[in-house]
Amino acid sequence: MRTSKLLMIPGPTNVPPRVMEALVRPIINHRGPEFEALYAEVFENLKYFFQTSWDVIPFTSSGTGAMECVVSNTISPRDRVLIPLYGNFTNRIKEIVEAYGGEAVTFKVPEREAVTAKQIEEELSREKVKMVYVVFNETSTGVAVKDLKEIARIAHEHGALIAVDAISGLGGDELLVEEWQIDFCVAASQKCLAAPPGMSMVSVSDRGWEVVNSMKPRSHYFNLKLYKKFFVERRQPPFTPVVPVFAAVNEALKMLKEEGIENRIKRHRMCAEAFYKAFEAIGLKCYAKPEFRSNTVIAVEVPSGLKDTDIRRVMREDFGISIAGGMADLRGKVVRIGSMGIVDKSMVLRTVSALECTLRQLGFKVDLGSGVEAALQVFSKYS
Amino acid sequence: MRTSKLLMIPGPTNVPPRVMEALVRPIINHRGPEFEALYAEVFENLKYFFQTSWDVIPFTSSGTGAMECVVSNTISPRDRVLIPLYGNFTNRIKEIVEAYGGEAVTFKVPEREAVTAKQIEEELSREKVKMVYVVFNETSTGVAVKDLKEIARIAHEHGALIAVDAISGLGGDELLVEEWQIDFCVAASQKCLAAPPGMSMVSVSDRGWEVVNSMKPRSHYFNLKLYKKFFVERRQPPFTPVVPVFAAVNEALKMLKEEGIENRIKRHRMCAEAFYKAFEAIGLKCYAKPEFRSNTVIAVEVPSGLKDTDIRRVMREDFGISIAGGMADLRGKVVRIGSMGIVDKSMVLRTVSALECTLRQLGFKVDLGSGVEAALQVFSKYS
Repeated sequence: MRTSKLLMIPGPTNVPPRVMEALVRPIINHRGPEFEALYAEVFENLKYFFQTSWDVIPFTSSGTGAMECVVSNTISPRDRVLIPLYGNFTNRIKEIVEAYGGEAVTFKVPEREAVTAKQIEEELSREKVKMVYVVFNETSTGVAVKDLKEIARIAHEHGALIAVDAISGLGGDELLVEEWQIDFCVAASQKCLAAPPGMSMVSVSDRGWEVVNSMKPRSHYFNLKLYKKFFVERRQPPFTPVVPVFAAVNEALKMLKEEGIENRIKRHRMCAEAFYKAFEAIGLKCYAKPEFRSNTVIAVEVPSGLKDTDIRRVMREDFGISIAGGMADLRGKVVRIGSMGIVDKSMVLRTVSALECTLRQLGFKVDLGSGVEAALQVFSKYS
Repeated sequence: MRTSKLLMIPGPTNVPPRVMEALVRPIINHRGPEFEALYAEVFENLKYFFQTSWDVIPFTSSGTGAMECVVSNTISPRDRVLIPLYGNFTNRIKEIVEAYGGEAVTFKVPEREAVTAKQIEEELSREKVKMVYVVFNETSTGVAVKDLKEIARIAHEHGALIAVDAISGLGGDELLVEEWQIDFCVAASQKCLAAPPGMSMVSVSDRGWEVVNSMKPRSHYFNLKLYKKFFVERRQPPFTPVVPVFAAVNEALKMLKEEGIENRIKRHRMCAEAFYKAFEAIGLKCYAKPEFRSNTVIAVEVPSGLKDTDIRRVMREDFGISIAGGMADLRGKVVRIGSMGIVDKSMVLRTVSALECTLRQLGFKVDLGSGVEAALQVFSKYS
């Protein structure tokens, strides 16, 4: 029997019909006036998403491409980058920095936590680095940085740039790129923006541009100066963009403006809180320590005796809901729910209810309705 | 008054409804079984497009990203690459090689021509290089390499790898990747395949893999070894792919198989020949020398007294047809017609007829119907 599908993974997310319709508009010339108007609009609307008046440059790539863009435009061989490690995507920064011949200065953050300003300050009192590169919301573990503003301040105090991978967090939690003086902030289309995957973005501060402009770029495809020059001179990207996704992202950005970014963040906070309370009521353990919990990715431990693959299979096959497994060290140990984009009360309730049924079916003792009730209590607090 | 639109630029091209429908399917989990099946199919179908049994790796990027992929996986600082120059995209290879610290060994090919095996042989008798990197079909000038098989043989004879940017040519002209032993061949979704932009591809020969495997990759996003490993172990890409374009490309690849690549090439040849004969009959001069003419990009000189921008504007506003202008040195001097993807007799006739009317409207003396008649004569030869 067919059941309607719901994508509750940490990106890509469910995409609203209005955005899908933009995706399927006839392909246009990326060197013609229609695309130029769209491109200029995307640039303008991205500033709202990033809460900044600075340049935000879109790329045809996954978020990882944009993470690499930051490194290829700022890091020379042997330049040192401070990278606190607390999950897969922090490790990815290390791999990128090392691919470019930079020196990754790393330290391990305690399990179930994200990095804190205090830890950064301790490291910077010992280590001289060109850049601090942190993951705002670690998709692999469901932990989030809670004092990014302070981390940016400390980085600057020590003469370092601050770069942030905010791919799975921007739009789902407060991140004031310009007010907090984040020099490079990276995001992507398929997370809290609820557009299809295929576009990534990098915002660049004035301080960031100074460094970029003083460097010989080490990638041509991700050459920030070239994108800036082409935008200023022609309102065009230097290379053929993924035209349908650009149209879709622009529609998603309009929807973000209509909702208001504060409202979107509040909605993400409410849904995440409902998930955490619901899972605890069901008798599950959330992976992240309460003070580091993500607003967008909820990692839940797999109860002993159950297998993550069974939970995911029953959720998918019987209830039409895709959820994610764990990555690397957490493979088999957690399942991850993406609570992003157009996530709302009904999606939360459907997911919680399906998980209750799935767990019971797999032999885990559940009071049906206990999770739903806990979620409802959270919702009532927000209304 | 609205008129139906036709995209006659050198990519993106008109996309058939069947491919657009695939684009707008519900977004799926790129780490789930549905996408794994799609991804494996794309890998398999790409082999047909490239006429090889070797690996063909798809990327979420424009073609330039894939051009850079080849360099970042093979070239170390000071490695020498022979790059014959005959247009914008050959220059782009030089920029990429230099961004990676390689030494570009260049020579200028005579105007209106593409590089020949004889020229490559002369250069390689003097210069020791690690790789020869040529553009198969130079989109900026409408010239095409006619003896690529021989060029590959000569490169190997001199101990060099052969890399080919075939972005605007593959599927529109004969290129037998494996039979000709092309070590790296680069293509993209939005040209002769008639899919939307956003995906690029690189094929790798056994000899190519030997070099790639011996190197420390210099880009993480374009790390070929990583894509291969993820494909073999999980049938997944390492980074979030542009899911809708992957679905669309797979549909376009199925259409290519149904038509047969020989038939598709023949159709491109016929349409290009019709354009060349039609333009000459109208009294225009084609830019490329006859022996170097492209099958997919027709560059026509702007008649004296006329402006390229006027021609393009009237074509677009009065007849709904987008054509391209010249690039770099040829800006203002030529207009370029893309004859790619699903191009057919009716598109050729509509474009030729509209150009006749446009030129007359702009004061250029044209016998209306002269171009159409010349095109018809070419068609009759092929039927």
